[in-house]
Amino acid sequence: MPETENFTIDAFHRGRFHLFQPAVKGHRAGVDAMLLAGAVPDGFSGTVADLGAGAGAAGFAVAARCKEARILLVERSAEMVDCAHRSIALPENESYAGRVDVLQADVEATGRQRVAAGLSDNHFDFVIMNPPFNGPRDRASPDSLRRDAHVMTDGLLERWIRSAAAIASAGGSFAIIARAESLEEILAACAGRFGGIEICPIHPRPQSAAIRIVLRARKGARGMLKLMPPLILHEEQGRDFTSQANAVINGEQSLFAV
Amino acid sequence: MPETENFTIDAFHRGRFHLFQPAVKGHRAGVDAMLLAGAVPDGFSGTVADLGAGAGAAGFAVAARCKEARILLVERSAEMVDCAHRSIALPENESYAGRVDVLQADVEATGRQRVAAGLSDNHFDFVIMNPPFNGPRDRASPDSLRRDAHVMTDGLLERWIRSAAAIASAGGSFAIIARAESLEEILAACAGRFGGIEICPIHPRPQSAAIRIVLRARKGARGMLKLMPPLILHEEQGRDFTSQANAVINGEQSLFAV
Repeated sequence: MPETENFTIDAFHRGRFHLFQPAVKGHRAGVDAMLLAGAVPDGFSGTVADLGAGAGAAGFAVAARCKEARILLVERSAEMVDCAHRSIALPENESYAGRVDVLQADVEATGRQRVAAGLSDNHFDFVIMNPPFNGPRDRASPDSLRRDAHVMTDGLLERWIRSAAAIASAGGSFAIIARAESLEEILAACAGRFGGIEICPIHPRPQSAAIRIVLRARKGARGMLKLMPPLILHEEQGRDFTSQANAVINGEQSLFAV
Repeated sequence: MPETENFTIDAFHRGRFHLFQPAVKGHRAGVDAMLLAGAVPDGFSGTVADLGAGAGAAGFAVAARCKEARILLVERSAEMVDCAHRSIALPENESYAGRVDVLQADVEATGRQRVAAGLSDNHFDFVIMNPPFNGPRDRASPDSLRRDAHVMTDGLLERWIRSAAAIASAGGSFAIIARAESLEEILAACAGRFGGIEICPIHPRPQSAAIRIVLRARKGARGMLKLMPPLILHEEQGRDFTSQANAVINGEQSLFAV
């Protein structure tokens, strides 16, 4: 059992929910999870799978804004699953009782293994994911041919998106937050699985390239790809969030509201 | 020979160049060609192929801003080739003499046919293109499977981008303006050919989805994809262009200047 002093309890959405999470940097939820949660529309009332949920940040953020949504936090790491359980058990989160649950499972499991792990096919009305950035794909490849072919990663996004497509219901929705440079790989992984793609670029400042994209799509949909107005996190100067970023991060507005 | 009354002579870049073009709507150059030209950086001094050049709008716009660039307008239609020749011959365009030329050729020609048509392999320092939007790909496909597989077009973009990659020099640049929903197809066509992709979304108004993208890349480059700050054409209300759109459209600023 972990030492209590290595963990913190943090307020999100202006105190509407709290997370029990490791004090160690790199495992702590932040802006990315809040932006991902913003992809779920106001009033959504179905089932949500939060893949790679960590301590539950994105899933709780959806639960906090969408009062009838039921969330399954899916996480492989025993330590983070423990954090998620402790988050659910916090007295501050009492109002979410029965709407947020945890499943220890590997998102990359396939076929019968995935079903046996508790992730049923064609089941979830919305699948959200904030896949890890610090896999092997962050290391520069010594094989220049692979890079030339735009195989920038080790296929993690392909495997995660394949699982998302399997467990999403027919017509169910999907959202991912990822680095902007992963756009090609994500679009390739969505092809034939998710359509009606909407992309919201996340720019740190008005005149800087996007650092993240939030991409939303629907299983089996046929709509055309849309490049939505971007979200700008900060003005050109200063450290404050823009009013729009603040509203999304604090669960007062969904990301694709415009 | 066409009747003179069916043609107009129009000023672009605040009168810095003129185009002789059909009076008929649909064949007239406009904002798209100016935005495409904006993808060529200030001070560029190499050779440019403008594929599907029409009367020469984008090519002339590059020539007007980049005083040492040499432009080859590549166009299949005899009528538009005639317009391009007449544009070059206009007294108003005297200052471009010797820097802008025309080649009647089919961009979709391949291999030796393309070379025989006058488009040498590995030759151009910058290839720009504004492919036609009104091909068969604009008709809804009766075959839902094709649409499901994100084969949204008839492959025109793949064929045009293949030609661009063939005629671009090693390390040469490429730029395309296209409908935003063509992003997936363009990225797929660039894979293994062009890298270091930069995408500038073009939004009609701040709160509307992008209607166009200008995508720029380099042959054989390995850099990560970048999603650049968008260009907004108009404010939320009114018909005037924003100051940034005006500057790009009038050749006072390149599109990726930020």
